[in-house]
Amino acid sequence: MTSDLDQTDPLASYRDAFVGAETPLVYFDGNSLGRPLRVTGDRLKAFVDEEWGGRLIRGWDEGWMDLPATIGDDLGRICLGAGAGQTIVGDSTTVLLYKTMRAAVAARPGRTEIVVDRDNFPTDRYVAQGVADECGLSIRWIDVDTSAGVTAEQLAEATGERTALVVLSHVAYRSAYLADVEQLTRIAHDAGALVLWDLCHSAGSVPTELDAWGVDLAVGCSYKYLNGGPGAPAFVYVNAGLLDSISQPIQGWIGATDPFLMGPTYAPAAGIRRMLSGTPPVVGMLALQDMLDLLEQVGIDAVRAKSVALTDHAVELAEELLPDVALASPPDSARRGGHVTLNHPLMREVTAALWRRDVIPDYRDPHGLRIGLSPLSTSFAEVRRGLETVRETLDALTR
Amino acid sequence: MTSDLDQTDPLASYRDAFVGAETPLVYFDGNSLGRPLRVTGDRLKAFVDEEWGGRLIRGWDEGWMDLPATIGDDLGRICLGAGAGQTIVGDSTTVLLYKTMRAAVAARPGRTEIVVDRDNFPTDRYVAQGVADECGLSIRWIDVDTSAGVTAEQLAEATGERTALVVLSHVAYRSAYLADVEQLTRIAHDAGALVLWDLCHSAGSVPTELDAWGVDLAVGCSYKYLNGGPGAPAFVYVNAGLLDSISQPIQGWIGATDPFLMGPTYAPAAGIRRMLSGTPPVVGMLALQDMLDLLEQVGIDAVRAKSVALTDHAVELAEELLPDVALASPPDSARRGGHVTLNHPLMREVTAALWRRDVIPDYRDPHGLRIGLSPLSTSFAEVRRGLETVRETLDALTR
Repeated sequence: MTSDLDQTDPLASYRDAFVGAETPLVYFDGNSLGRPLRVTGDRLKAFVDEEWGGRLIRGWDEGWMDLPATIGDDLGRICLGAGAGQTIVGDSTTVLLYKTMRAAVAARPGRTEIVVDRDNFPTDRYVAQGVADECGLSIRWIDVDTSAGVTAEQLAEATGERTALVVLSHVAYRSAYLADVEQLTRIAHDAGALVLWDLCHSAGSVPTELDAWGVDLAVGCSYKYLNGGPGAPAFVYVNAGLLDSISQPIQGWIGATDPFLMGPTYAPAAGIRRMLSGTPPVVGMLALQDMLDLLEQVGIDAVRAKSVALTDHAVELAEELLPDVALASPPDSARRGGHVTLNHPLMREVTAALWRRDVIPDYRDPHGLRIGLSPLSTSFAEVRRGLETVRETLDALTR
Repeated sequence: MTSDLDQTDPLASYRDAFVGAETPLVYFDGNSLGRPLRVTGDRLKAFVDEEWGGRLIRGWDEGWMDLPATIGDDLGRICLGAGAGQTIVGDSTTVLLYKTMRAAVAARPGRTEIVVDRDNFPTDRYVAQGVADECGLSIRWIDVDTSAGVTAEQLAEATGERTALVVLSHVAYRSAYLADVEQLTRIAHDAGALVLWDLCHSAGSVPTELDAWGVDLAVGCSYKYLNGGPGAPAFVYVNAGLLDSISQPIQGWIGATDPFLMGPTYAPAAGIRRMLSGTPPVVGMLALQDMLDLLEQVGIDAVRAKSVALTDHAVELAEELLPDVALASPPDSARRGGHVTLNHPLMREVTAALWRRDVIPDYRDPHGLRIGLSPLSTSFAEVRRGLETVRETLDALTR
């Protein structure tokens, strides 16, 4: 199953690096859980038997303790536009959102509002509400068109002297709307606020330039386009200019100046390690490291180019095959992340029927079929076959 | 290398279930990082290639989402004396200490003190200090003899109407002092306080009866005697009687009533799932599951019996071979966990020399050689050989 577009795709051969590439499955959910690389299973087995089993506790001195920072630096360099020493891996996205929001609010004393859009991912909204409640701030909600994101005008209107923090997503989890990070960050800064970007739906598929754009804080997960595996740890970026003045509330031994001094009082480590709390989740980071190796080899700009080609193809096929379906994602690829959402009142039923036919998209309220196109593991033929199956399924359901 | 004690040890054969059992290494650090089981490497590879790679996003519906609770229930039943629905796996120990301390303080409004002993593990102390600072409470420190723990008299004296929470460790990380959980819990309850027990140094080697003892909250890690691997996720126990009234501050989607409803506001899930925040760390939980299978087969009381025999043997050998060294652990095995600490002014240097000879204990200030004896993966002959090497090393250093 290949198409002409696969024949001319310079990255087509990388698809074979992923488990399951040889199966007829149409996988439209790599933006929710990326496929494993074929090297990862053996890598994990070797890690257990040789590194963990062979080096045992000595492994901590021989590299494990530094893994959160070394993988963080790799991620920053390969995907995020972040210089070394600003990105670190650990915890879940939710826990890191909590830590960064608390840190940001503490860094803007006297300010009383956190600005969040109502279409942001639930965890972002829930954590923001919890942090606002416990710190005596309020949330200033921005209502957005679900097929778009927060506009410059909306953000300028919502921010001011009261704003401590603005929480936004780089790529919207439903529509795939791709925010102008640089512009919106500047607007938040004009109000004296900090900005926290959620990169869950972009890291590994849409490049960022966090340093150049002046981003303060960013958090993202590693199990979507970074193929880290189910529940793999998250990452956090803190701009070097903020690092020494910021502190997070979960004061654990690994984030302390010298973890093995075990002294009477906590003092945060210099640099990005202060964002850590507990023992680094080593086993959970290895698959991410494999994927970063591949992304470095391919280059994130090439990955983005294929991502755009894939989503363009999906949009064209939807226009051709699915005239009764509404595109809920931006038609302009420059404002679109790595997935495409198609709306139809029957999409919940369509999704269930597609799963039974080994076509695996996601369903997101209200009536959205979300087609995630993980750039290196998805073929153009797979996109066509999947959308043809959507057509057949809709026909069967509306017959 | 076997001894008579190995010949008569009914659990001796289980040692072969662990990676590296065939090597001459003397591993005295299974209380810091347990050895992997031989089945775990293949299990992880199979998980990557078949479950993650084969089921992909469908895995969440097919069991992964329930893993934190099902493994938690297994852990509760096999090791903790906890009925179903009160134990769940996720986050790091540090993050769970933070959540439980915040939850406890919120459940005792108006009370102004957290009681902690100065010899508790650094993360426990640091998190308690942070929670106290941010919630406007103060820490009431208990000074303890480092070779013992908090006494009933000390705790009765330190607790009262001001006490919101008492934070204690079941087994002290340096001395291995084994606390009387039931007695100390009752004393805290007499003062109207809640108690949080840190089980890091006991879970998997010393059984507890959390339900019968009326424990409110407990947290522990899975990479020591539970052999979950470096940085494996932690677990939390919340007594059923507290569950519906308690809330923790990191309001993530997985801890919400219906994660996939993705509604406008956070409402905590019923039951123990409200203690979760982010996506469950599936890959990181699998090795723990393997070890729980083994512990269920052997039985935690049999494991404890071997643990006692091993530490008794170490104490006897220390008396015989190391008269110039001081036992820093309780001589009575009924008050001792799974490790033995030996003090000598040169122990830092001894530890370094031992590592060069493939004898791997831990060093803990002040001048303590910590000998961790993971019950199922340690032989009596290993204990003898290790302590003989300590003798040779001390002789070489003091010659």
